[in-house]
Amino acid sequence: MTAPAILRAAHAAFRVTDLGRARAFYVDLLGLVETAASPDALCLRGYEEDDHHSLLLVRASSPGVAHMAYRVASPDDLDWLEVNAREAGLPARRVAAGEEPGQGPALRLQDPAGLPVEFVASMERTGRLLQRFDLHRGARIMRIDHFNCQVSDVEAASAWYQRQWGFRCSEYTETDDDPPRLWAVWLHRKQNVHDLALMTGIGPRLHHAGFWVPEALDVIRACDLLAGAGWHGAIERGPGRHGISNALFLYLRDPDGHRIEVYTGDYLTADPDRPAIRWALNDPRRQTFWGHAAPASWFDEASPVESVLTGDLLPTHAPALQDRPQFLT
Amino acid sequence: MTAPAILRAAHAAFRVTDLGRARAFYVDLLGLVETAASPDALCLRGYEEDDHHSLLLVRASSPGVAHMAYRVASPDDLDWLEVNAREAGLPARRVAAGEEPGQGPALRLQDPAGLPVEFVASMERTGRLLQRFDLHRGARIMRIDHFNCQVSDVEAASAWYQRQWGFRCSEYTETDDDPPRLWAVWLHRKQNVHDLALMTGIGPRLHHAGFWVPEALDVIRACDLLAGAGWHGAIERGPGRHGISNALFLYLRDPDGHRIEVYTGDYLTADPDRPAIRWALNDPRRQTFWGHAAPASWFDEASPVESVLTGDLLPTHAPALQDRPQFLT
Amino acid sequence: MTAPAILRAAHAAFRVTDLGRARAFYVDLLGLVETAASPDALCLRGYEEDDHHSLLLVRASSPGVAHMAYRVASPDDLDWLEVNAREAGLPARRVAAGEEPGQGPALRLQDPAGLPVEFVASMERTGRLLQRFDLHRGARIMRIDHFNCQVSDVEAASAWYQRQWGFRCSEYTETDDDPPRLWAVWLHRKQNVHDLALMTGIGPRLHHAGFWVPEALDVIRACDLLAGAGWHGAIERGPGRHGISNALFLYLRDPDGHRIEVYTGDYLTADPDRPAIRWALNDPRRQTFWGHAAPASWFDEASPVESVLTGDLLPTHAPALQDRPQFLT
Amino acid sequence: MTAPAILRAAHAAFRVTDLGRARAFYVDLLGLVETAASPDALCLRGYEEDDHHSLLLVRASSPGVAHMAYRVASPDDLDWLEVNAREAGLPARRVAAGEEPGQGPALRLQDPAGLPVEFVASMERTGRLLQRFDLHRGARIMRIDHFNCQVSDVEAASAWYQRQWGFRCSEYTETDDDPPRLWAVWLHRKQNVHDLALMTGIGPRLHHAGFWVPEALDVIRACDLLAGAGWHGAIERGPGRHGISNALFLYLRDPDGHRIEVYTGDYLTADPDRPAIRWALNDPRRQTFWGHAAPASWFDEASPVESVLTGDLLPTHAPALQDRPQFLT
Repeated sequence: MTAPAILRAAHAAFRVTDLGRARAFYVDLLGLVETAASPDALCLRGYEEDDHHSLLLVRASSPGVAHMAYRVASPDDLDWLEVNAREAGLPARRVAAGEEPGQGPALRLQDPAGLPVEFVASMERTGRLLQRFDLHRGARIMRIDHFNCQVSDVEAASAWYQRQWGFRCSEYTETDDDPPRLWAVWLHRKQNVHDLALMTGIGPRLHHAGFWVPEALDVIRACDLLAGAGWHGAIERGPGRHGISNALFLYLRDPDGHRIEVYTGDYLTADPDRPAIRWALNDPRRQTFWGHAAPASWFDEASPVESVLTGDLLPTHAPALQDRPQFLT
Repeated sequence: MTAPAILRAAHAAFRVTDLGRARAFYVDLLGLVETAASPDALCLRGYEEDDHHSLLLVRASSPGVAHMAYRVASPDDLDWLEVNAREAGLPARRVAAGEEPGQGPALRLQDPAGLPVEFVASMERTGRLLQRFDLHRGARIMRIDHFNCQVSDVEAASAWYQRQWGFRCSEYTETDDDPPRLWAVWLHRKQNVHDLALMTGIGPRLHHAGFWVPEALDVIRACDLLAGAGWHGAIERGPGRHGISNALFLYLRDPDGHRIEVYTGDYLTADPDRPAIRWALNDPRRQTFWGHAAPASWFDEASPVESVLTGDLLPTHAPALQDRPQFLT
Repeated sequence: MTAPAILRAAHAAFRVTDLGRARAFYVDLLGLVETAASPDALCLRGYEEDDHHSLLLVRASSPGVAHMAYRVASPDDLDWLEVNAREAGLPARRVAAGEEPGQGPALRLQDPAGLPVEFVASMERTGRLLQRFDLHRGARIMRIDHFNCQVSDVEAASAWYQRQWGFRCSEYTETDDDPPRLWAVWLHRKQNVHDLALMTGIGPRLHHAGFWVPEALDVIRACDLLAGAGWHGAIERGPGRHGISNALFLYLRDPDGHRIEVYTGDYLTADPDRPAIRWALNDPRRQTFWGHAAPASWFDEASPVESVLTGDLLPTHAPALQDRPQFLT
Repeated sequence: MTAPAILRAAHAAFRVTDLGRARAFYVDLLGLVETAASPDALCLRGYEEDDHHSLLLVRASSPGVAHMAYRVASPDDLDWLEVNAREAGLPARRVAAGEEPGQGPALRLQDPAGLPVEFVASMERTGRLLQRFDLHRGARIMRIDHFNCQVSDVEAASAWYQRQWGFRCSEYTETDDDPPRLWAVWLHRKQNVHDLALMTGIGPRLHHAGFWVPEALDVIRACDLLAGAGWHGAIERGPGRHGISNALFLYLRDPDGHRIEVYTGDYLTADPDRPAIRWALNDPRRQTFWGHAAPASWFDEASPVESVLTGDLLPTHAPALQDRPQFLT
């Protein structure tokens, strides 16, 4: 086997300080489906998802990201990835089936940028609710789509994901330096714009987890229902259109400050010879096609991440390059 | 006072044989808001409505329509209408405030076509939920819009509503006879296409009560959620676009067979000198702009109506003219 | 006649410095229909409109607003309004049929706040394109809806429109002073939220003319198509939801800086006894229900207005009260 | 190489008898982009597509389908497929780069069911118009998605596509026989519900080519714009929701009778271990989730297909099984 069969972004595991408030946000308002709940964890999924969960909320004394998980095709892929991690000196550990609720055998490791990554070979099936339209509520979130992370060295992290793990680049951003420097990349395994974006910034941090909705109106409704319930403070940015990826986006902050994106509208990337799209960092339409600037919080704030070995939150590092467009500084 | 200040279609009162099943349809699935409930009645309203109810469901041994109600500006209008009814020999009776839940003084009468009409001068205010988007569910019905009735003589009924009660005609349908005969009219007091449509058919019967939703997607969702819950049998016709009125329509049958329309997309009729739009009965785009024919049930079936004096269901009469386009016969 | 039958906001007349650029914006991009064109003027309308124009663009050496027009029911209303203006000492002049293209007899006057108002008794009918969906383009603007003006004394101007001309108040904004001061009003003749809003600010100026689209997606598309054509600089604010009026809004600036609103989603105001809705100036959900602040330009910039007698642009006056919420200062 | 890297459904080639009328339908009304045109052919694509064409219209004396094309990853795949065809005794021929406009090297063959299939290794890039929203018109078709074919023996054809060419099954339909017989399959290479559906019927025939639009409202608009232009006769079935695939569908007939589907709303199939979904042929929600029956023409009529060697239309064969649900017979 020359490369592992990584299928797609599969779930995010967030540390939250108050499961009740998190539940109010994700279940009561946004409408994620509750697969399982305990005093220590909530397992949530979208209406299209058959897997046990695409968002795992774990009770903790401080916010942070426990891991970002990708589905792989089989346990053999875990073996390959474990060897690969050992050879590269990456911290890694096996996770037995059932250690995380509803989950088969898995492997957790720290990627070269320090991001906590889980690979999981199977999940308990819970039954899709795609056509139980009578149960759809809230923002009508169908499925998780991607992770977006800030790392201090995008060039190095991007090379690792592409060369070692077979991710493909759909779009990227370069600085105006001569020669240009790689500022951000959008990488995919499944056939849309991304499973993982890597942006230059204080890292390793999770900038946001992205969830897909089927209609532009669902994005509007997400704003309306949050505001209607008095949660307008959760709306950080949007709705807007990204130049990159073409997504109609909305960025929300959960009660612990974790950022999620509710989006629709990217495109199919089924052809491996499709040329990657280049954007200049200082092109205002790159980040918001309609021209609006993102708020400073969108660049400054992100979620710290755990060590997969100790569970401690990792220290962060300043980026080598500027962390935002010049028109925002 | 030369004419009463009839403001708009205000509520329908349906006899239903099983309040629990009616509640499952109107509240649990379609999402109408329950203002009040008793063992004998359910008072429902849309999210935009401040009035106590726009749909009154009354427990009865057989289905039928108790009355169609219009709001008038003041009790003076009730006086005028009572005199007008007495002079015309129409059965009429006063309804005391509170006799119908949440309702101020009212007048019920049988119009010249036999339809049971209520005029009500005030309703208890219950609080609009327009901006409580977090509570919006189901088909997102905002408000009642209109009644559509089958009568045996449209010409006579139409003349009464326009000359006596000041309704205006927005659109109408004529037969291909020479000279043409009036087959149907769309009459309004509020400033959109209609508060009342009168169609040639076995009458007096209520063909449907129309409810307004803000987006085309709400019409699609109404189909999806009914089908998702196993209630696809309630979907009789649509979604489709009417040539007449431009409405994007969906016709549903409640568990007692009462027909309601969920629609969006008509237009403003604020100018009194606006010319009425003429349609030929046998133009297929009149009934469905996209060309689809309505099912036979849509012409054959409608709800019988009560006598406002006895509460008995009234006998019906065959129409003077053909009751449907030639391409359907 | 105790009050004139003012029907609705009917058209705006903008002075523009380059008709070609204005045409590129309003016709080629936004999709307004061109009824008539000359070297000196463009007459535009929406797809639902039968009237000759709802936006008149007049070539001029500097930008500004020539007038805001309302339809009245008959020439008698012009007579009443002329007497009323003379008695109040308001500058006024008759406009002969045809002096403005496609227009019947009219009256122009300066209202007590200095705003140039036209009342027009009839317009040439041009044929609605409501159901020529194959011709709908751009933002799918259906019709003009309202004017929003900045005046230095809202209390006085509001009293005039309500007491003299029979406008009704649907919503209003008060300051936090004790007693509160009236900061803005939304006034209507037709049966939705407004034909005219009056806001405290440097005045007399037109803040924006509002145009109605049928779907939330049309608002999104307006952003997308402007950005797609490189006109993202025209997008000033939005999309967002107003607390006031419930409109899903988008504010655009035309090549001369005139501001228009493309919106959907307000509500029916058919009942004259409907209580007006009160908002506090410093409630952030008042201006943007989702919590976003408006940019400073939205308060600072507006279009100067003409004298109806001389055609000169009028001087402006500072408002008596603060001109924006405290959280923006 | 054990199996060819077939990427996705890529284009349909239709024989049309009048290119001008076909252009009126596909370009002027539906809004497909014209990449190239000659007196003998039109090359069209959707707004998301970079490839030269996804619909090729070829002038011919009678309607029919020249071929259905799939993209493969490289010319090596053509070699493998040619050997595979020769070994199986399937008619096949190489197509030189440029023989079809804008196309690189390709292979055409008759599959075991008689369907004319082209595999193409590269296409000229023409520039995506995804973000030129100002140019989007008509039904806003983004890209081709799939082919749906009637064949006389679904079991045999399905086995070929899965075992020889590596297609995966997302959903399937069985008869109520004991044991059940395979009636239809939905097969995919790219990661959504299908690139190819095979249904029991008179075959080999192309039932329809499916094109993807991003929003439910685009489906509604397709109906409206066709009807607005007087082309309501082109609307054969829908809008409706399929139980199978979850697509919100609309079936249109072009001026030569070729059927296309305009749809949105299926789902991601990135996990190879995802279980296929079973439907019973006589479940009414299978074909229309909302319960409406398809018209007889939808089962009776389809496009004949060409021999890839002679260009002659192939004779058809009656199916071994019933060709429609019992409730339609």
